[in-house]
Amino acid sequence: MTDQLVAAAPLVCPAPHVGSDRVQLGHGSGGKLSVALLRERFLPHFANPALLRLGDGAVVPVGSSEIVVSTDTFVVSPLEFPGGNIGSLAVHGTVNDVAMMGARPLYLTAGFVLEEGLPFELLDRIVWSMGESAAAAGVSLVAGDTKVVERGKADGLFINTTGIGLLTRDFSPAPDRARPGDAIVFSGPIGRHGMAIMAVREGIAFETRIESDSASLLPLVDRLREALGPDVHVLRDPTRGGVASTLNEIAAASGVGIELEEAAIPVPSDVSAACEMLGLDPLYVANEGVLVALFPDSLTGAALASLRGHPMGAMAVRVGKVVAGHPGLVVLRTAIGGSRIVDQLPGDQLPRIC
Amino acid sequence: MTDQLVAAAPLVCPAPHVGSDRVQLGHGSGGKLSVALLRERFLPHFANPALLRLGDGAVVPVGSSEIVVSTDTFVVSPLEFPGGNIGSLAVHGTVNDVAMMGARPLYLTAGFVLEEGLPFELLDRIVWSMGESAAAAGVSLVAGDTKVVERGKADGLFINTTGIGLLTRDFSPAPDRARPGDAIVFSGPIGRHGMAIMAVREGIAFETRIESDSASLLPLVDRLREALGPDVHVLRDPTRGGVASTLNEIAAASGVGIELEEAAIPVPSDVSAACEMLGLDPLYVANEGVLVALFPDSLTGAALASLRGHPMGAMAVRVGKVVAGHPGLVVLRTAIGGSRIVDQLPGDQLPRIC
Repeated sequence: MTDQLVAAAPLVCPAPHVGSDRVQLGHGSGGKLSVALLRERFLPHFANPALLRLGDGAVVPVGSSEIVVSTDTFVVSPLEFPGGNIGSLAVHGTVNDVAMMGARPLYLTAGFVLEEGLPFELLDRIVWSMGESAAAAGVSLVAGDTKVVERGKADGLFINTTGIGLLTRDFSPAPDRARPGDAIVFSGPIGRHGMAIMAVREGIAFETRIESDSASLLPLVDRLREALGPDVHVLRDPTRGGVASTLNEIAAASGVGIELEEAAIPVPSDVSAACEMLGLDPLYVANEGVLVALFPDSLTGAALASLRGHPMGAMAVRVGKVVAGHPGLVVLRTAIGGSRIVDQLPGDQLPRIC
Repeated sequence: MTDQLVAAAPLVCPAPHVGSDRVQLGHGSGGKLSVALLRERFLPHFANPALLRLGDGAVVPVGSSEIVVSTDTFVVSPLEFPGGNIGSLAVHGTVNDVAMMGARPLYLTAGFVLEEGLPFELLDRIVWSMGESAAAAGVSLVAGDTKVVERGKADGLFINTTGIGLLTRDFSPAPDRARPGDAIVFSGPIGRHGMAIMAVREGIAFETRIESDSASLLPLVDRLREALGPDVHVLRDPTRGGVASTLNEIAAASGVGIELEEAAIPVPSDVSAACEMLGLDPLYVANEGVLVALFPDSLTGAALASLRGHPMGAMAVRVGKVVAGHPGLVVLRTAIGGSRIVDQLPGDQLPRIC
């Protein structure tokens, strides 16, 4: 029988000490330790309906409108990498989180922690990138704050961005709206951001340089909105923890099963080679310019046509479907006819990739 | 003649290297170096009307409403201090910034940078304080983010909070609305937050322990709104850089002069003693639970009565007035009949007090 489920989560190194009484790197991974940190240390003190939905952002009323609010702190190391820097990443990351909630991003705030001794030349490049990225995405940076800490008390520069968007009618993708019969589409090849960072950090050189995919996903969201409108059930950008973590979250939130076709998953050959060299699974590697969309399978043709009409979506592809069976589980049908559970990682594959 | 102006800004140690090509601690001071950093490095890339008003927050439209958005990153050291911790401070600081713009704070986001090895016991106390402070201020924490960096790449914990408030009609205090004839009122004694931090950091013990004044200023704002409504011209909370920096900003933004009566300025005796010991000027020391209010002098009686009706405002006092002369300058009339200019500091008296 080819359908047996084999749990085969990659090894995590260093192994997380789950019972420890101190914060570990793995708590920032986006995996099981992050979820435990959130549920055990934060949610008990802040319980409210908007926060408890645990989306990429919160939907809250303001006056007669509904807005989406999302916040993210960026601690990526190195600060500059092929395809971007911490500044462009900080804009794209938060713009995308707001967009994945179905809102039109309007405003950004930025909070900087600068380490004493940071060269202005580097700061200028990063801030320039933020300005360019914000203008390209059509968002205004309306408030900011700068703090400076002593040398050795930070790592060059951290940036928090908080985004505010306006929710529009007839478009409300949410992690808990996946339904059996939905198709799962990736807007492009996966693993580029995480492996671009790792290649720099580990000093790995390939024939081609892996570039981060960091980009605003707004053009792709606009196309899906026009083509499918309210039929878009779920939109997510699979950042920390990769597509594996994102799909697990969707399966859990919607109480459905997810089936992926291994052969359909688009992994660029250089990403694949780098992952193999470092013992990493591309399903768990961060993306910063890919979206995962779920909608009724009958609309797959229209969705792919709309996505492929934009250069960023040229390689959009259907990678699987939502099923009623094995609720909460993501199952990968392998190329050789087997299958395995794609679990959430306990801790970290790749610290500080965003 | 007793009116001669003597510029007597305190010495700054270490002296800032203004021409340097790297970030220095003084760039985070809230003084002249901070202003230069903002104007030279950030504003050119983000110019838009909301940001250029340079208030404690931005006023922007959303749907048919106007909201106030404010962001602040907290890097205070030590993380716990008499009267509060970085968690309560991160809530009060941003709630107060939104309130000073005349808005009702509704929502907060929180972005955490945790250093590997941070004890959960400490994190729990801090997060608990955030929850308590948010509930007391009537704001909901609706979105959050947590990152973890390696040991030695942060300093325990940094917290960014971003606040969103709804602007109400008939109440729109702004830094550029000061007018000659306005009275200047402090809601309470100054210098407590900064000196509470410094006393811990420098290991100074007094007969009485100096406690931070960190608190939500909403109850006092509500009282002023009820008593004076649209006649409140300016509201500010004098945090980094103290009342001296705040009053200089108001004088510059409104194009007016400010006269302070030294004898009227409320400095607690323990704050005064600690400042003397450390060679600091209490006018430049951070407050986290004091507001500065400006309104027509004829309303001073009503304003003081309303503030003093709340325990936090029991020691509210008129400290000076707005004049048409010496626009942009803050002048202190000393107890012995002289006067001196209270300038903005170039760099830092007290790094990392918020």
